[in-house]
Amino acid sequence: MNSKFIVIEGLEGAGKTSAMETVVEILKQHGIQDLVFTREPGGTPLAERLRELIKQGIEGELLTDKAEVLMLYAARVQLVENVIKPALARGSWVVGDRHDLSSQAYQGGGRGIDKNLMTSLRDAVLGSFRPDLTIYLDLPPKVGLLRACQRGELDRIEKESMDFFDRTRSCYLEFAAQDKSIVTVDASQPIGRVQADICQVLKQWLKQQESC
Amino acid sequence: MNSKFIVIEGLEGAGKTSAMETVVEILKQHGIQDLVFTREPGGTPLAERLRELIKQGIEGELLTDKAEVLMLYAARVQLVENVIKPALARGSWVVGDRHDLSSQAYQGGGRGIDKNLMTSLRDAVLGSFRPDLTIYLDLPPKVGLLRACQRGELDRIEKESMDFFDRTRSCYLEFAAQDKSIVTVDASQPIGRVQADICQVLKQWLKQQESC
Repeated sequence: MNSKFIVIEGLEGAGKTSAMETVVEILKQHGIQDLVFTREPGGTPLAERLRELIKQGIEGELLTDKAEVLMLYAARVQLVENVIKPALARGSWVVGDRHDLSSQAYQGGGRGIDKNLMTSLRDAVLGSFRPDLTIYLDLPPKVGLLRACQRGELDRIEKESMDFFDRTRSCYLEFAAQDKSIVTVDASQPIGRVQADICQVLKQWLKQQESC
Repeated sequence: MNSKFIVIEGLEGAGKTSAMETVVEILKQHGIQDLVFTREPGGTPLAERLRELIKQGIEGELLTDKAEVLMLYAARVQLVENVIKPALARGSWVVGDRHDLSSQAYQGGGRGIDKNLMTSLRDAVLGSFRPDLTIYLDLPPKVGLLRACQRGELDRIEKESMDFFDRTRSCYLEFAAQDKSIVTVDASQPIGRVQADICQVLKQWLKQQESC
C-alpha cells in the first residue's frame, strides 16, 4: 500500500490527542511503523514562529482576520512542501493534528471570511494536494470548550465566542457532508465508544485501500 | 485637498531614500506638514516580525515562494488596516517606501508566481485600496545592485540573480505602462537630475489634484 496522509480534525477539546493515539495503534497493528506526526499551524521552524504569532498575537496590535489566514497558509505551505510531501515520497505515513479543513472551518465558518476566497487560497497554495482520510471528531462546542478550559489557559482563538464555534462546527459538518474522504465520528460519546468508532472507521478504510 | 497616499518604488539601489526626502520637501513647500512614513514589508510590530522572517529567512529551512508572498500580504494588510487607512482618515498624508507594486514586480515578475494569483491576492486582501500616486525609479539592475553592495551586506532577496532583477524590472515597466497613477522616473541619471524630475512630476500632480 502507498503511504498515506491521515488527518484528525475537530473543535478544541474534541479529543484529537487521544484519537491520534488510537490511529497510531491501529496503523502499527497493520504493520505500518514508519510514521511522521504533524500539527498545524506549525511543524517547521518557520511555521512554529508563525504559530506563536497566530496563537498569541502581538500585544496592542489588532491581528486582522486576513493576516491570520495568510499566516496560516504560509505556515501550511512550508509544512506541506518541506515535511509532508517529502515524508510521503520516501514511504512514510503522515498523521496530522489538523490541516486545511481547520482553516476552512475556523476562518471560513467561524470568522466568516468569504468562502470563495478560502477555497481559492487553498487551491492556489496547495494545488490538488489533499489528505487521503480525515477523521472529524464532532461534538457540541460547549462540551469541547469545557474540556479545553479544564486543561489550562485558553489561547487567542480558544477565547472566541460560542457563536464563533457554532459557525465553525456547522462548516465542518458542511464539508464532511460533501466530501467522502472526511468521516465524522461522534466525539460526545464516552471515550471508549469514540475509540471504538475510530477503530472501525480506520480498519474499514485500510481494507478498502488494500483492495484498491 | 484630501489626504493622499504616495509611494516610492524601485529596485535595490534605485535611490528610494533620497527620493522620499525630495517628496517630503515638495509636500512641505505646499503646506502639507502632517506626514506619516511607511516602509514595506513592515510598519507595525507584527509586520516587522514578518519582515525579519522574509528578509533573513530561517537557517536550514527553505522558504517557499508561496510562503514568502503570503507573509508579505499578511504584513501589508496589517499596515494598511492599522496604520495607512487610519492615517488617511484623520487627514495625514502617507508617504510609503514600497507597497503592493513591489510584490507584483518581485514575486510576480522576479519569482514567476502566476500573475493571476498575484492580482487575485491583491484584490482579495486590499479590495480597491490603491496608492494615489506611485513614483517608480527605473534603472538597470546592475547599476542599482552595485550601489546596494557598496552600502553593506545584502539580504536574502538582494542576493538573487541578475535574471531575477531583470524580470522584476520588466514587470515594473509593464505595470507602469498600463497604470496612469504610476509615473516612471529615470533613476540612472545623476542625482540632481533625478531630484529635478521627481520635483516636476510631483508639482504637476499636486496641481492636477488641486484643480479636481
